[in-house]
Amino acid sequence: MLKRIFLPQDRMPTQWYNPMPDLPTPLAPPLNPETHKPITPDMLAPIFPDSLIAQEMSQERFIDIPEAVQDIYRLWRPSPLVRADRLEKAIGAKCRIYYKDESVSPAGSHKPNTSVPQAYYNKMEGVERLATETGAGQWGTALSFACAQYGLECVVYMVKVSYEQKPYRKMLINSYGGTIFASPSEQTRTGREMLARDPGCKGSLGLAISEAVEDAATHDNTKYALGSVLNHVIIHQTITGLEVQAQLDMIGEKATHLVGCVGGGSNFGGLVLPFLPKKLAGDPVRFIPVEPRACPTLTRGEYRYDYGDMARLTPLVKMHTLGHDFMPAPIHAGGLRYHGDAPIVCNVVAEGLCEPVAYFQTECFEAARLFLETEGFLPAPETSHAIKGAIEAAKTAGPDDVVVFLYSGHGLLDLASYDAFNHGLLTNFELPQRDIEEALKRCPVVE
Amino acid sequence: MLKRIFLPQDRMPTQWYNPMPDLPTPLAPPLNPETHKPITPDMLAPIFPDSLIAQEMSQERFIDIPEAVQDIYRLWRPSPLVRADRLEKAIGAKCRIYYKDESVSPAGSHKPNTSVPQAYYNKMEGVERLATETGAGQWGTALSFACAQYGLECVVYMVKVSYEQKPYRKMLINSYGGTIFASPSEQTRTGREMLARDPGCKGSLGLAISEAVEDAATHDNTKYALGSVLNHVIIHQTITGLEVQAQLDMIGEKATHLVGCVGGGSNFGGLVLPFLPKKLAGDPVRFIPVEPRACPTLTRGEYRYDYGDMARLTPLVKMHTLGHDFMPAPIHAGGLRYHGDAPIVCNVVAEGLCEPVAYFQTECFEAARLFLETEGFLPAPETSHAIKGAIEAAKTAGPDDVVVFLYSGHGLLDLASYDAFNHGLLTNFELPQRDIEEALKRCPVVE
Repeated sequence: MLKRIFLPQDRMPTQWYNPMPDLPTPLAPPLNPETHKPITPDMLAPIFPDSLIAQEMSQERFIDIPEAVQDIYRLWRPSPLVRADRLEKAIGAKCRIYYKDESVSPAGSHKPNTSVPQAYYNKMEGVERLATETGAGQWGTALSFACAQYGLECVVYMVKVSYEQKPYRKMLINSYGGTIFASPSEQTRTGREMLARDPGCKGSLGLAISEAVEDAATHDNTKYALGSVLNHVIIHQTITGLEVQAQLDMIGEKATHLVGCVGGGSNFGGLVLPFLPKKLAGDPVRFIPVEPRACPTLTRGEYRYDYGDMARLTPLVKMHTLGHDFMPAPIHAGGLRYHGDAPIVCNVVAEGLCEPVAYFQTECFEAARLFLETEGFLPAPETSHAIKGAIEAAKTAGPDDVVVFLYSGHGLLDLASYDAFNHGLLTNFELPQRDIEEALKRCPVVE
Repeated sequence: MLKRIFLPQDRMPTQWYNPMPDLPTPLAPPLNPETHKPITPDMLAPIFPDSLIAQEMSQERFIDIPEAVQDIYRLWRPSPLVRADRLEKAIGAKCRIYYKDESVSPAGSHKPNTSVPQAYYNKMEGVERLATETGAGQWGTALSFACAQYGLECVVYMVKVSYEQKPYRKMLINSYGGTIFASPSEQTRTGREMLARDPGCKGSLGLAISEAVEDAATHDNTKYALGSVLNHVIIHQTITGLEVQAQLDMIGEKATHLVGCVGGGSNFGGLVLPFLPKKLAGDPVRFIPVEPRACPTLTRGEYRYDYGDMARLTPLVKMHTLGHDFMPAPIHAGGLRYHGDAPIVCNVVAEGLCEPVAYFQTECFEAARLFLETEGFLPAPETSHAIKGAIEAAKTAGPDDVVVFLYSGHGLLDLASYDAFNHGLLTNFELPQRDIEEALKRCPVVE
């Protein structure tokens, strides 16, 4: 039995896959939040470089990965596909389970798959400084790593509650040369106004986005970078699914279940979307996105136009949403606490091509503990959702089935959440239906 | 150029190398601390299982790796050999630099190479519980991981100052099911006596060893496990050097410089000793152990019999020592703060087969920062010494030279030390010659 399947380096994909031309129904266009008309590339130009705007709207099925991006990818890519045979035995599975290990990147997650090209394209267009927000810190780490590789300045607005709870994240971002501010900060008008109103404000992702966007708009040679949701982010993440295809081919296996956790949707989309053409052609492969029951966008949200952020600064996008002012419960999988999802992922979910499931956080931590005891590695709380989803899929799968899940990151900087779990201190949150209905009433109505 | 060289899984070594029969001068025997007579296997039996005692004294050149140990090794082995080409460019090296990446193990270091077989052999002999000490926490993590794989209980005595400074280590050990006590503890007579004398005592490695040994001696079905220094530990660690040989063969390279950091000497020994027979046969490959100037055992210690611990409980072993009651300065590379070194490593150093060097911690953190900026990954403070040594070796090496260093672990749980470095708070420590001379006067005189 082959435990760890390594794709030879010279077979690392040299193009990303763009699912746009293959979507059964075209993607609904993002809309100007005031006029409700489709936005044009020039409206995005103040905060994104032209090449990423072009990718955002591209209909090309494959997009070349620049040589200088491949060069950095090779620091850790191709990442291993690993047979979780000890986990299989522990749950009495009849099928095989594999995981695509994205925790091996310098930042410890799948996020550098997009932070590296984003930093590269900005650098090529003369940008000298990138601003971003981060919640739990994975994305801020990945962007500061990428900026270090291309000599860009990196400024990260980190939600204050996480900034205070996760000091190691801050130290790692600093070590890559990134500058980090607790949000709300004194650096932006938005931050200062919030602090004037509420000096004890612990921040939110929506607020941190607003600060990063304002920073980009008000500094010379500065652009904004986003770690999920957008089309170009999903495109960059398809390198994982493309590698999985090549790795399964190498060992003569065929995926029947593809599982990933969903926050903004980029790791899940990156894994499953390269399999979309075959699925549309009749391949019975199942796409299983896994989300927290405390933030059940795909299982209980409404598919409609909504803002991407709480402050209503972003374009309107069509997605499964719990309402842009929905405040998810404080679960430890911080990366899954987003009120919406990537429009591309929502599009395929709305087509009935995915089977979303939702679990409580203690169920997911129990799955993580079983993984730790059998496969040895400590998963991120977000990743534990994918593990739980894969275990449940495997339990009902047959001997010809092959379950593949995306191991999106390690949990070494999330140990405090394991400590809480080990001490029985975790709470489960079930979202009342009325809360969802109330929040959706505050969404914009688009004719 | 091949960036990451993966040895196919079916070429993972199935035997460890035992350097004992190849040492030019036989190893000086460990002595009973009272009689100064060589110790016999039965004297070790209360704290070690028979199979490890046999390995400790073995003269077999190769020792089979049990299938059940290979099974766990395959969770992360063979580990990659990585071309550090971006580091080469940054320092203007004419040679090639490779690093053997042992940070990819579940525990994040090379330590599981020996914790896994130690747990396995104990399990096979009916032991149900292992006790150990840990300083910075790497070894405690590795042993609790290994015990989890074989269903053994694991008890870790962690030096109190580290226990308080590194809460994530404790949480990780707990997550693997290990029990951890700050040392001095109330669990042992030694610990209680120390607490009675000095309730504020922050502990030391010597004291934690005493507690773990006492725990093993006073509990049913419990043995003791040590993470470095001993012959069987070095033997287990040779899997890294054996893999490096196979990986270099795959790409037609020949090592000219082998570099590793030295605390107890197990990662360095594991890397270089498989190359010993060729070196003795005339191969000009250079062995370069790197140590902190704050704890310069190989560069400034005396090669003589001394105790392995401060409390003088262990056998006397012949090694380079700064004196068993030497208290190293509080450098951040906690794993390199040991007053002696593995007898096997000291033997080859005494034969003139190694070229030990010592660096200040800020020099090493600067090397680590350069590595982070070029190769992307965050090294452990211990590992930064190997990086510094490799950089210095590479600066004077020629175009035919190949520098290989052992990347012993990641620094993700050591971020506080990077934070101190980034804020300019690190102090360098040069050890006064008189301190060494005074400490050596307190060493036992063996006729």
